[in-house]
Amino acid sequence: MFDQVLQRIVDETGGAVGAVLMGYDGIAIEQYFPAEEALDLQIVAIEYSNVIKEIRKTSEVLKLGNMEEVSIKTERFIIVIRAITSEYFVALTLYREGNFGKGRYLLTRETATLVEALV
Amino acid sequence: MFDQVLQRIVDETGGAVGAVLMGYDGIAIEQYFPAEEALDLQIVAIEYSNVIKEIRKTSEVLKLGNMEEVSIKTERFIIVIRAITSEYFVALTLYREGNFGKGRYLLTRETATLVEALV
Repeated sequence: MFDQVLQRIVDETGGAVGAVLMGYDGIAIEQYFPAEEALDLQIVAIEYSNVIKEIRKTSEVLKLGNMEEVSIKTERFIIVIRAITSEYFVALTLYREGNFGKGRYLLTRETATLVEALV
Repeated sequence: MFDQVLQRIVDETGGAVGAVLMGYDGIAIEQYFPAEEALDLQIVAIEYSNVIKEIRKTSEVLKLGNMEEVSIKTERFIIVIRAITSEYFVALTLYREGNFGKGRYLLTRETATLVEALV
């Protein structure tokens, strides 16, 4: 079920590398990579899970409201992280030229489905 | 000079709270807040500067290329952080309903001017 949602997000976003549903503890529930890729998405998500936890904590301390989304753009990739529940997030990685807006929209659209399946 | 660039970014982005030009060490060079605001932007930027440093380091370690931009969306605000040089970044804060796309565009547009003035 989770793999179908991740597949929909990756296939419908133009220029996506893959997506992973992961706990803030760095343990993945499910992932979807359509192609062999030099980039290890799971490692990327694990490395960023601590940072995401830190951002979430900071948002709460500063009373900015709950963290919903974090995007990181580098020279080569765009990583969009969407909080699903207090324990899980989805990380979608795109090539730099990928459709960032479409990816964000699809993550938002699929959040309700993922929340329902997770709780 | 820096204040004029920050003012242009804030005034031209619809729904912006303010902007700050800051070192990764959490020390601000310049800031621009058009209105009295409950949110202390400088505190927000300081709190996030460590996180940004961590993201930058992780991007390098994972060979994703240099970090260019980080966006954080919470229930109340959107914070867009743009790397200017290896030492400085600009943090633009918008209300949640603000024009995220315009803010990103203006930060990109003004980067060259800021780089020139900083180095």
